[in-house]
Amino acid sequence: MPPKNSVYIATSIDGYIADKDGGIDWLDMVSIPEGEDMGYYAFMENIDALVMGRNSFETVLGFDVDWPYTKPVFVLSNSLSVIPKSHREKAFPVSGELTEVLHMIHNRGFLRLYIDGGVTIQSFLSEDLIDELILTTIPIILGGGIPLFGDLRQRLAFEHIGTKVFADQLIQRHYRRVRQ
Amino acid sequence: MPPKNSVYIATSIDGYIADKDGGIDWLDMVSIPEGEDMGYYAFMENIDALVMGRNSFETVLGFDVDWPYTKPVFVLSNSLSVIPKSHREKAFPVSGELTEVLHMIHNRGFLRLYIDGGVTIQSFLSEDLIDELILTTIPIILGGGIPLFGDLRQRLAFEHIGTKVFADQLIQRHYRRVRQ
Repeated sequence: MPPKNSVYIATSIDGYIADKDGGIDWLDMVSIPEGEDMGYYAFMENIDALVMGRNSFETVLGFDVDWPYTKPVFVLSNSLSVIPKSHREKAFPVSGELTEVLHMIHNRGFLRLYIDGGVTIQSFLSEDLIDELILTTIPIILGGGIPLFGDLRQRLAFEHIGTKVFADQLIQRHYRRVRQ
Repeated sequence: MPPKNSVYIATSIDGYIADKDGGIDWLDMVSIPEGEDMGYYAFMENIDALVMGRNSFETVLGFDVDWPYTKPVFVLSNSLSVIPKSHREKAFPVSGELTEVLHMIHNRGFLRLYIDGGVTIQSFLSEDLIDELILTTIPIILGGGIPLFGDLRQRLAFEHIGTKVFADQLIQRHYRRVRQ
C-alpha cells in the first residue's frame, strides 16, 4: 500500500478554518442528525496516524473532552516538552524536514496519514505532499480568520472523487491529487 | 418582485477567481460536453442587468469575442469615458454609494442584478448586499491570485439551496443569504 496524506477539514464558504478570534462555534451552526458523523469514522478507520502542528495539538488538549484519537498523533515540534506526561503514549513529537519526518513515520509502519491544522496543511501543500482533500463547507462567510490555504509556488491539480450533502446544508467535496 | 443581487462565478479550490498573473486559463482545465453551460443561460434569463467594476468591464471588452451580454451592464466608475462609443447603448457608468447606485438601477426597472468582478463582489458583500451565491469550483489549487472573498466586518450566514456536479469535476454550490 502506498503512503497517503489526507486532509479532512471543515471551512467557511470563504475558506477559513477558524474565525478572527480563533473561534469555531460556527462549525455547529447547522444541526445534523444524531449519529451522523459526515464520514469521519470511516475516514479515521482508514488512517494509520495523525500529523499536526503544536498549535493544533495544544488546542485539542485544551478541549474539555477525553483524548479523541485512537491512532498515534505525531506533533511537529522541536521540543519534546510539548507532550504532557499524560499523553506520552498517544502523541509523539517529530521535527525536521517534512520529507524526513514522513520517512521516519512510514518506517514505523504508519503509511496513511491524517494531516491536520492550518499551518501543517499549508506546509504539506507547499511541498506537494497532500494526496487527498475532504473539504466540508459550512454555509457561512466569516470575512476573516485563519485561512485553510496559503501561498504556493506552484499550482496543484486535483480530481473530484465525489460530493456529499449532509443535513441539506453541509457540502463535503472529496478531491484526489493528480500528478502528471 | 423584490430586488435580488446574485453572484455567479467560478473559483479554484482555494478561492481565487484569477491566478497570480490575472490569468483564467485554468477555468478550462476540465472539458465539459458541448452545449453544457452549467446553468449560465438559465441564470442569465432571470437577470435584468449586470453590475461590474471598471476592471471587469475592460477585461470583457478586451476578450476577442463579440459583446457577450444581452442585458444592460452598469459599470461602477466615476468616469463616463470608461464606456467606449461602441458600447454606449449596452453599458452605462454609475457612481456613488452602492445603496444609491442600487436605488437608481432599481428605479429604472432593473431589479434582479448579476454582480460580477472580484472588487465589486467584495464591496457588495461588505455591505451585506448579496442575496445569492452560485459558486462553481474548478479542481485546482492555484496558491495565489485574485481572491473572491475579502475581509468583512460581520459574518454572513447562508442557506444551501442545491449543489450540481458537471462533467464529474466541476462542483456548483448554490447559496441564499439568510438574514435574521
